[in-house]
Amino acid sequence: MSSIFTKIINGEIPCHKVAEDDNFLAFLDINPNAKGHTLCIPKTEINKIFDMEEDHYLELMRFSRKVAKALEKTVACKRIGMAVVGLEVPHVHVHLIPLQDMDDMRFQRKTSLTQQQFEELAQAIAGNL
Amino acid sequence: MSSIFTKIINGEIPCHKVAEDDNFLAFLDINPNAKGHTLCIPKTEINKIFDMEEDHYLELMRFSRKVAKALEKTVACKRIGMAVVGLEVPHVHVHLIPLQDMDDMRFQRKTSLTQQQFEELAQAIAGNL
Repeated sequence: MSSIFTKIINGEIPCHKVAEDDNFLAFLDINPNAKGHTLCIPKTEINKIFDMEEDHYLELMRFSRKVAKALEKTVACKRIGMAVVGLEVPHVHVHLIPLQDMDDMRFQRKTSLTQQQFEELAQAIAGNL
Repeated sequence: MSSIFTKIINGEIPCHKVAEDDNFLAFLDINPNAKGHTLCIPKTEINKIFDMEEDHYLELMRFSRKVAKALEKTVACKRIGMAVVGLEVPHVHVHLIPLQDMDDMRFQRKTSLTQQQFEELAQAIAGNL
């Protein structure tokens, strides 16, 4: 069965897209730790990040850095945090999270945005790429 | 003033070293989220990871992947999590954390090891590089 992220890549589930190239996609997390929380994923379904081929992994890291720099220009924060966990969805995803404090990294305190706020935010980040 | 990590690099503060090359150092976190929690740092004192030059950042990511794969061979876990936060020490550090559950990523629940356990663990990980 396809992962939820493969369904997003295939357009079966909508997302608020931030960036895309041939191999990677970035979109807003729909249940964000903080405003601007973004996921960067490879288009191929791989479970664990350190099982990716080295070149593929480094390209994902390069892509994530580009998105992080656009995110930092767009959302007021102390810095952009990065996390890779993967205990829930078995498809590599790099969390990029604008941080104000440590709780923004803990995946417990969540933030709500309207669909319009998500869409405007995704466009603003994409505009800063 | 030098960061605590620069003092570790310079040997002014001891550490349980896991890996080292000309540009990067990996050592066990002394207050680990879980057994095997390792920090990978650049030897130059840079505050924010996404401010690193792209090549330098990608080399840090390559180094961290090598350490993560050795860590996964050494410590029983579901997978290796990765986090970059940096709200406390202004010197880039990549957390590599052997995960059993989400609490291992939250920097709240901590684990204790003796000095001997730390040293044996560091040597075991180094032996799997």
